[in-house]
Amino acid sequence: MNGKIFVVGLGPGDPSQITPQVSNAINLATDVIGYFSYVDRIAPKKGLQLHPSDNRVEAERAKHALTLAEAGSVVLVVCSGDPGVFAMASAIFEVLENNAPNWNNIDIEILPGITAMIASAARVGAPLGHDFCAINLSDNLKPWSIIDKRIRLAVEADFAIAFYNPRSKSRPKGFEKTLRLLKSHCEGDRPIIFARAVSTEEETIKYVSISKAKADMADMRTLVIVGSSQTRIIHQNNREWMYTPRHYPEKDSQ
Amino acid sequence: MNGKIFVVGLGPGDPSQITPQVSNAINLATDVIGYFSYVDRIAPKKGLQLHPSDNRVEAERAKHALTLAEAGSVVLVVCSGDPGVFAMASAIFEVLENNAPNWNNIDIEILPGITAMIASAARVGAPLGHDFCAINLSDNLKPWSIIDKRIRLAVEADFAIAFYNPRSKSRPKGFEKTLRLLKSHCEGDRPIIFARAVSTEEETIKYVSISKAKADMADMRTLVIVGSSQTRIIHQNNREWMYTPRHYPEKDSQ
Repeated sequence: MNGKIFVVGLGPGDPSQITPQVSNAINLATDVIGYFSYVDRIAPKKGLQLHPSDNRVEAERAKHALTLAEAGSVVLVVCSGDPGVFAMASAIFEVLENNAPNWNNIDIEILPGITAMIASAARVGAPLGHDFCAINLSDNLKPWSIIDKRIRLAVEADFAIAFYNPRSKSRPKGFEKTLRLLKSHCEGDRPIIFARAVSTEEETIKYVSISKAKADMADMRTLVIVGSSQTRIIHQNNREWMYTPRHYPEKDSQ
Repeated sequence: MNGKIFVVGLGPGDPSQITPQVSNAINLATDVIGYFSYVDRIAPKKGLQLHPSDNRVEAERAKHALTLAEAGSVVLVVCSGDPGVFAMASAIFEVLENNAPNWNNIDIEILPGITAMIASAARVGAPLGHDFCAINLSDNLKPWSIIDKRIRLAVEADFAIAFYNPRSKSRPKGFEKTLRLLKSHCEGDRPIIFARAVSTEEETIKYVSISKAKADMADMRTLVIVGSSQTRIIHQNNREWMYTPRHYPEKDSQ
């Protein structure tokens, strides 16, 4: 007997940003698997097994989900934000690819969520209103050389850039290197925002210019957005808005 | 007296992908402004004024929203997907920047939604599970030269690439040029998906390799995702999944 796996995105934190599609999947689940602070967001109920785990065990977590589903469970794999953006969906497919015969009949559904860059952009205005890219600054699973290369090319392409996982206790130096690169390749007054724990009670948002950005403004709960050359800050209703216009000047495009 | 503007994302089409936060805003609105097929997604009710408009009048639409809010209305500006990704949020700020004094006290909230690339990625697997970028292929508001440059640099950076607005009747040639560029810079078996009208009754999804991709596989309702060099297709449960692994090989990163 084969069960089912829902890999779902819980959004950045505010329960009113969880889609009804995901809420329905939560109601159907017999088992919940995920990083402990995401599993904590699911209300316990009778008959629902919670399986919280720590960071960096994504492959083990994916195996656990597939094994439970193979035995007939309805497994909810919970992610913050969206499951497909630097989260568990890829881990599920990696494990599946290496063990496909066993798990060939399991029904898998990926249910999208509001990812951190989309939620953060909405809180500050519209910095992603023109072409943009998303870079995960963790070098746990990739060499720093590809991160460095991507940052340089992203700046050359004049994308707005969303940085996920900018800095952690075990990776204190990467974001320093990132800021050094940005400071040497972008004008100093280019806007950058540090959006921490967006949509939760601990939310803080800092607007600075690249020249004033410091590495310790970011931690693991921070999403960083660096504007393109066209991104601007405007003042309205006693606050700042950061946005990127829809148009791009002819002269700057060569 | 100043009213309020909610700029909201209705997601790609499935009502169960509209967040409760957006549903609450819909309930508060006195006026709805947007492209006609998005306004059609709001249920009419007594006292709710609907103001549908055609494409390419985003600035006029933004002015209309701000003018109604200035007079005390609660205005809902509706977008498909997310309001901050190639949608109305930037248009609102552009108009605001040029007319700020009049509209300084209007309360504006941007409420995020499930954007097409996130919804499409979830339907096909996890192609955006590693670093990626989003490029709007419409050259109505930017020169083709910057689009061409960004595509080349995005391929060099080995991003997965989500293309919005690939092709329309008034822009039949841009996506042909895009495919020609991709075919000359990527290996021919790199996976590409054409996700049309995702989550609606007209949904169709095509998986092909770059060498077999043709321009007429896309129209204005299609979101195209091109994999990175690492993106793969696997078969499971009588279907295909496209995903990008979380790790990146050391040797390919120079």
